[in-house]
Amino acid sequence: MKRTHPFVPIGMFREAARFLARAVAFRKLHSALLVLVVFSAGISFAQTLDPLPSWNDGAAKRAVTNFVEKVTKEGAPDFVTPAERIAVFDNDGTLWSEQPMYFQMIFALDRVKALAPQHPEWKEKQPFKAALEGDIKTLLAGGEEALVELVVATHAGMTTDEFAKIVKDWLATARHPKTKRPYTEMVFQPMIELLAYMRANGFKTYIVSGGGVEFMRVFSEQVYGVPPEQVIGSTGKTKFEVRDGKPVIVRLPQITFIDDKEGKPVAINQYIGRRPIAAFGNSDGDFQMLEWTTAETGPRFALYVHHDDADREWAYDRNSSIGRLNRGLDEAAKRGWIVVSMKNDWNRIFSVPKR
Amino acid sequence: MKRTHPFVPIGMFREAARFLARAVAFRKLHSALLVLVVFSAGISFAQTLDPLPSWNDGAAKRAVTNFVEKVTKEGAPDFVTPAERIAVFDNDGTLWSEQPMYFQMIFALDRVKALAPQHPEWKEKQPFKAALEGDIKTLLAGGEEALVELVVATHAGMTTDEFAKIVKDWLATARHPKTKRPYTEMVFQPMIELLAYMRANGFKTYIVSGGGVEFMRVFSEQVYGVPPEQVIGSTGKTKFEVRDGKPVIVRLPQITFIDDKEGKPVAINQYIGRRPIAAFGNSDGDFQMLEWTTAETGPRFALYVHHDDADREWAYDRNSSIGRLNRGLDEAAKRGWIVVSMKNDWNRIFSVPKR
Repeated sequence: MKRTHPFVPIGMFREAARFLARAVAFRKLHSALLVLVVFSAGISFAQTLDPLPSWNDGAAKRAVTNFVEKVTKEGAPDFVTPAERIAVFDNDGTLWSEQPMYFQMIFALDRVKALAPQHPEWKEKQPFKAALEGDIKTLLAGGEEALVELVVATHAGMTTDEFAKIVKDWLATARHPKTKRPYTEMVFQPMIELLAYMRANGFKTYIVSGGGVEFMRVFSEQVYGVPPEQVIGSTGKTKFEVRDGKPVIVRLPQITFIDDKEGKPVAINQYIGRRPIAAFGNSDGDFQMLEWTTAETGPRFALYVHHDDADREWAYDRNSSIGRLNRGLDEAAKRGWIVVSMKNDWNRIFSVPKR
Repeated sequence: MKRTHPFVPIGMFREAARFLARAVAFRKLHSALLVLVVFSAGISFAQTLDPLPSWNDGAAKRAVTNFVEKVTKEGAPDFVTPAERIAVFDNDGTLWSEQPMYFQMIFALDRVKALAPQHPEWKEKQPFKAALEGDIKTLLAGGEEALVELVVATHAGMTTDEFAKIVKDWLATARHPKTKRPYTEMVFQPMIELLAYMRANGFKTYIVSGGGVEFMRVFSEQVYGVPPEQVIGSTGKTKFEVRDGKPVIVRLPQITFIDDKEGKPVAINQYIGRRPIAAFGNSDGDFQMLEWTTAETGPRFALYVHHDDADREWAYDRNSSIGRLNRGLDEAAKRGWIVVSMKNDWNRIFSVPKR
């Protein structure tokens, strides 16, 4: 899928330049002039558009646009070359919702149900029993161990192509228990605008999430405009095999890396190999990523999305079992990190209005 | 560092388009027209340049240019969208030399010598003894285990920033034992041209190498035009730590992934998340990468660099302990993979002529 650059359409520039060059080459000067006039009118129009219409005017929005403007202003002291304009975004709770639990966990529970007929023993065995009964409390009480067991049982034993198809089919049909929307419609419109705005200003936008990398890659390009090679996440062991002369990659039942907390800077270093200049998160699981991003000299930017809108989304922070934001709230101000109030700073939450 | 696009300067298009738009906006039509004429003349000039001057005319060169032309021709049956134009390149033996042993191993031996005063026990302990005595035969006889021990002893115990500086200093001062050149001058000019040519045609070029990722990233952008985030390699365990309030990433003495043979498609899947359409290697260690790349339907391209030029570089293949090419030579023809003769297909080997 193609990425879109809605506000500064570089592709249009390129196309127009090619057309102009061709028109001149063939001495079609009238055509060339006409294009020039139409094109420059288009530019003026584009410049008057607000790239962040879902953000209310206020300190948070100003902080974002000020940062982007200063690092892109050639010759200015804070100018950053495009190659170094790396921005990293957490996914769960930052780009889409994460309640009542991470959507990938809901996917895992749905998979347990789908696979249950082949596993009669699951009816009596935890954490599968709780999963089949929709007993979230027991599930979460089992801690990381229970979740890992569920993931391993539902995310392994097939090729990567087969897994991608399972996720794709699930995303197309599954609905969120409370909002009844497809999960990919529970992405935050202000963050979609922010991603596009940063890319339009030469940023390379990455997702750095605790979610499984092959789960997110199924929808990241279509939904966020982030191509698969810019998605970093938790990983499982895989194995290359040739089956009947055709090579496949098989997913094995072993988690090799959890991309959370201290793991995020580690993954950023391993996958990107340079330090981002901007980082966006919503929980203490993102703290080290924001810390790593902002510790270097030069212009740096960090932002927390604060879930404080129980009416339009969910309200939770210091005591939540999912997406806890405690240390982040304590330290954001003194570290110069922005805290966005979903309630006050965003005039719209989801990318697709309620139906 | 900026990547260069010597043959299709998109940046120029963009700049020219902006200038044109501005000129028209201010009714400076004469200026606009002048730029158009100069600019289109520049395009014609650029088109007459051979993008691969170090490649002799012949089947190998034609195969490369035919492939690039067919996948970039909009509307043609083999057209591939730019997002899917992923090309992967092995490093050792494909982009630069690898004799008498991988350059990173020479680096490790030099590190053993530099660190020896702090490790008097190394004088009597293998593989360090052999390393200190320059006894390559004994070293290689120790197999992978010996090499891993050397790498772990010399590549860990410092922060990632400290390691990058050590590599940078080494590259600036070390000289190859036979050619007396800096190692970064032993890169293959025809491959540098190929990388630039493919990028100019919308390809995203990746390095996928058995070498250590943090070793290669020190020079990949400057030497190959490949930014750190497009370098995939073997990895060691690292750890995030806050030291005196400053976060660092520390290299630990544990290898977590060897990016060779079956590991290459696994790494491609993990880091890129989509299948390349072109792959370049020189040894059986690259076989699975070429196999994975070409197994999918649609236009695919695979190429082996064959080291058959003892005069200008080295000649080795089926029986070499470094860079063995055996199965690849047997199966290339029937799989439709191109084998480049360095002797016959390249009129120049190294990027910097002998001094």
